[in-house]
Amino acid sequence: MYRTHTCGELRINHTGNNVTLAGWLQYNRNFGGLTFIDLRDRYGITQAVFNMDTNATLCEEARKLGREFVVQIEGKVSERSNKNPNIPTGDIEIIVDKITLLNDSKLPPFTIEEETDGGEEQRMQYRYLDLRRKPMRNAILLRHQLLQASRNYLAGKGFLEIETPFLIKSTPEGARDFVVPSRIHNGEFYALPQSPQTFKQILMMSGFDKYFQIVKCFRDEDFRADRQPEFTQVDCEMSFIHQEDILEMFTGYVKHIFKEVKGYEFSEIPTLTYTEAMHRFGSDKPDMRFGMEFVYMNEIIGATEFPPFAEAINSGGIVAGICAKDSANYTRKQLDELVEFVKEPHRGMKGLVWARWAEDGSIKSSADKFFDEGKIKSWLEAFGAKQGDLILLLAGDKKKTQKALGDLRLEMGQRLGLRDRNKFAALWVVDFPMFSFDEENNNWTFEHHPFTSPKAEHMHLIHSNPGEVLANAYDFVINGSECCSGSIRIHDSAVQASIFKAIGLTDEQAKNKFGFFLEALQYGTPPHGGSDSIRDVIAFPKINSGRDIMLDAPSAIDDVQLKELGIVVKA
Amino acid sequence: MYRTHTCGELRINHTGNNVTLAGWLQYNRNFGGLTFIDLRDRYGITQAVFNMDTNATLCEEARKLGREFVVQIEGKVSERSNKNPNIPTGDIEIIVDKITLLNDSKLPPFTIEEETDGGEEQRMQYRYLDLRRKPMRNAILLRHQLLQASRNYLAGKGFLEIETPFLIKSTPEGARDFVVPSRIHNGEFYALPQSPQTFKQILMMSGFDKYFQIVKCFRDEDFRADRQPEFTQVDCEMSFIHQEDILEMFTGYVKHIFKEVKGYEFSEIPTLTYTEAMHRFGSDKPDMRFGMEFVYMNEIIGATEFPPFAEAINSGGIVAGICAKDSANYTRKQLDELVEFVKEPHRGMKGLVWARWAEDGSIKSSADKFFDEGKIKSWLEAFGAKQGDLILLLAGDKKKTQKALGDLRLEMGQRLGLRDRNKFAALWVVDFPMFSFDEENNNWTFEHHPFTSPKAEHMHLIHSNPGEVLANAYDFVINGSECCSGSIRIHDSAVQASIFKAIGLTDEQAKNKFGFFLEALQYGTPPHGGSDSIRDVIAFPKINSGRDIMLDAPSAIDDVQLKELGIVVKA
Repeated sequence: MYRTHTCGELRINHTGNNVTLAGWLQYNRNFGGLTFIDLRDRYGITQAVFNMDTNATLCEEARKLGREFVVQIEGKVSERSNKNPNIPTGDIEIIVDKITLLNDSKLPPFTIEEETDGGEEQRMQYRYLDLRRKPMRNAILLRHQLLQASRNYLAGKGFLEIETPFLIKSTPEGARDFVVPSRIHNGEFYALPQSPQTFKQILMMSGFDKYFQIVKCFRDEDFRADRQPEFTQVDCEMSFIHQEDILEMFTGYVKHIFKEVKGYEFSEIPTLTYTEAMHRFGSDKPDMRFGMEFVYMNEIIGATEFPPFAEAINSGGIVAGICAKDSANYTRKQLDELVEFVKEPHRGMKGLVWARWAEDGSIKSSADKFFDEGKIKSWLEAFGAKQGDLILLLAGDKKKTQKALGDLRLEMGQRLGLRDRNKFAALWVVDFPMFSFDEENNNWTFEHHPFTSPKAEHMHLIHSNPGEVLANAYDFVINGSECCSGSIRIHDSAVQASIFKAIGLTDEQAKNKFGFFLEALQYGTPPHGGSDSIRDVIAFPKINSGRDIMLDAPSAIDDVQLKELGIVVKA
Repeated sequence: MYRTHTCGELRINHTGNNVTLAGWLQYNRNFGGLTFIDLRDRYGITQAVFNMDTNATLCEEARKLGREFVVQIEGKVSERSNKNPNIPTGDIEIIVDKITLLNDSKLPPFTIEEETDGGEEQRMQYRYLDLRRKPMRNAILLRHQLLQASRNYLAGKGFLEIETPFLIKSTPEGARDFVVPSRIHNGEFYALPQSPQTFKQILMMSGFDKYFQIVKCFRDEDFRADRQPEFTQVDCEMSFIHQEDILEMFTGYVKHIFKEVKGYEFSEIPTLTYTEAMHRFGSDKPDMRFGMEFVYMNEIIGATEFPPFAEAINSGGIVAGICAKDSANYTRKQLDELVEFVKEPHRGMKGLVWARWAEDGSIKSSADKFFDEGKIKSWLEAFGAKQGDLILLLAGDKKKTQKALGDLRLEMGQRLGLRDRNKFAALWVVDFPMFSFDEENNNWTFEHHPFTSPKAEHMHLIHSNPGEVLANAYDFVINGSECCSGSIRIHDSAVQASIFKAIGLTDEQAKNKFGFFLEALQYGTPPHGGSDSIRDVIAFPKINSGRDIMLDAPSAIDDVQLKELGIVVKA
């Protein structure tokens, strides 16, 4: 060992001990008579001191050490006269007897500090230097802890960790596959898995009634800031269970990892149906750190000639709103911002109606040409608004308006500081729709995936009214982010066939797409279901164009290899 | 939950309990008045009983259940009159009140028993049925336990689990890469990692001084029975350590997993140098479950005209042998088999000389035309042979003869039952050669990989006498199998440059091949080293041609996808 202790380990009670440390030089400060160097490793920082009076040669040697040099020091732990309360080792320093330079370093292109002066691309190219920074280190450590806590919980509950293959069959559904040309079978390709979905169901058919895996998945999608072509998911599946068993198991899982990793204890975790979540919060992943629930106004408004409301109500739409506490003092400019927000093309609202109850008791609304103060006051009262509050109303088609109002709720939550990063609010959302209508292709398609089971009581609607069919599908949501998603699967081949038919697949097409799976389904498949969740701290991520700029990948390959693979790159 | 207990859980003390079980029907036996079904899950088998007299309808229902049907039963635990001591649940049976058929099953193409009548290919195609068999289940369970014990040990020692990417850069060294064409960057390819070697070294440069990962690796090699195109390794790396620190850490690791998983306690684990292992056992992975060490005969034989010995000794070669206890009664036929064994082309021996000391005290040898009985007795004595023993001698070039004699030792060990499957003997082999001479390409190449460090005291021989240079490389061997391999890496860019030069790479070529890595090496790389080990139980393996016959992968992909990837399949 090159060290007796790490750079984060020594405390006042080590005073007098002879120790050896090794690490990277963080700072080198020459104060004439004294020289200080700070030595850093992943555990912390320790100060070492050199005295020109007592050992000039050593002190001169220390002064020559540059940033990020790899240095070993031997010396005695000593109490500092000038203690640093900001670091755990701040009570002590090392009086050095011997320095060994283990390796030098070129000058790093950016500073290795909590806040760095390095640009995004530079930090990606020199990822190994960026990873030396404390925030990056902590993210990697957190991920490590999540992995261990996850496995310990699941293995403790009797789940078996089973690896599924990466070189699998291309299935023309879902996202785009990455493919791998076969050298032995020219013209044929493996696909990299988009998820282990079929394999974990096959494992249930194999009798492994509780399976888990923390596994890489691959999707060749167009890159977005929050999407990586390869990502990791915690993947689980159970047999002989109902939906509530899975919800209970994974509520336990989430409580366990938050307690282990964050020291955070969830109290109750509610369950909302999809319909209820949309109705109350305009989202299938509502942020439950704050209320600001929707109030539906159709009845309160009653008969009206005010065009936006009249149009919505008469065409079967809704008028609904939220109440922003203590926001009656919003300026014209701020209100205009909110109007622009809901009018953005993907929200598509025509406008926003506001009403405020000022601190002085006066009431004002953008619609007060059409409604008298008494009426507007009745609106405010419907929200339980108080003096100082602002209500924001949207009107239009139900689905569209709920979604836009859900976005507005999040925006106001953000503006009002209600989305506290240190607070956690979780819920299950259940009973998702089974199908959605694909306007572009003019057909019904899956909301989840083709192996999700419909509610038994909705089976008869599958062909007559697919839009009304609910699925045994559920999401776990924390702070407005879906962090776990799953379903009870179909275990009956007749049901599976019926579902394929509902989305317009012939028996022939179904067989081509899912042949081996449909075969397997007929050999005694138990009732089963599961979930997967996505983690997103990645040690070596790719940039938006899917390129790894540290490695410079992807890159050209040589002609011999192309020839072996039997493929030609088009000019 | 579909069950209150598993099929492996109920014991005599559960008698009288009302229980619900779910599982697969293993057997259905109709004895007229009584019908028995055995229900199986991954935990065991439980017998259920139906009585024609007390409930004829239910009994009729039970009789209709076929093999591998998925069945739920409710009933009362009862003591069996006819106990089965071969299974843990053999003391009880379930008197069934209610049957629910959860799913039926087509008749499986082979029996789901410990020993099956299914052929290799059929079992691969219906892997989900094969995995229901107990030996397969136990292999998967063992693997799960190995994974958990490995992680718990390593995480407990402060190793961080860090995932490295799968879509990386093609490096034209080692085995063949699998490649993945990029859709966004047409004409460019990612490679799948042959190992995370460069990444784990990058992580050491990043300051994560203890890293581990249990990770998939990919090699596009021509298939052999024991090679899979994708396999999993336990991958580790440590910084600020010397070779003995790694050996100590991983000795602890191996002891831990054997104790946890097998209940086996290793006592001492010896360390041999490569040279010593070759000298004593003719192998760099000697099976230490038995002795049968080599005895070198050159001096004992002295001057001789016996052509095989004379030729070997005069050309600087060796005569060496092993002693097979209690084998003096080997027949002519058996001895001829051994001669053929050493003459096989890859061993290339010209023959084998034997001498035996029969139980009756008589001495006989295949070379007794050339040597008198006293001489041959002196040979036998050199081996410590006793009456009843047989010695087997080979002669020739030192390396070749050692290897052939090593093979012969294993063969005799096998024949004599000395390679007991329930016994474990481990050792470290250290100080491997740094380079080997590639006869085909007429140059020196690496034994391990290009980042392995040479012994400091051999640095001066790198260019003048590469064959003499030893490396800081080590293997862990159990029962004659290399199960872990590693090295102390080069952390000095000047040494790295010198090593590249030794195998004839120009600076330019080295930069092309390992550019980003050589750059990283210059920013404060700590001394570091590590190991990786290979596990081989695979839930869904591929057959020898690299095909997954359950999935039917690889397979053709459609023209749209090829077009997006900018590649053309050659006719």
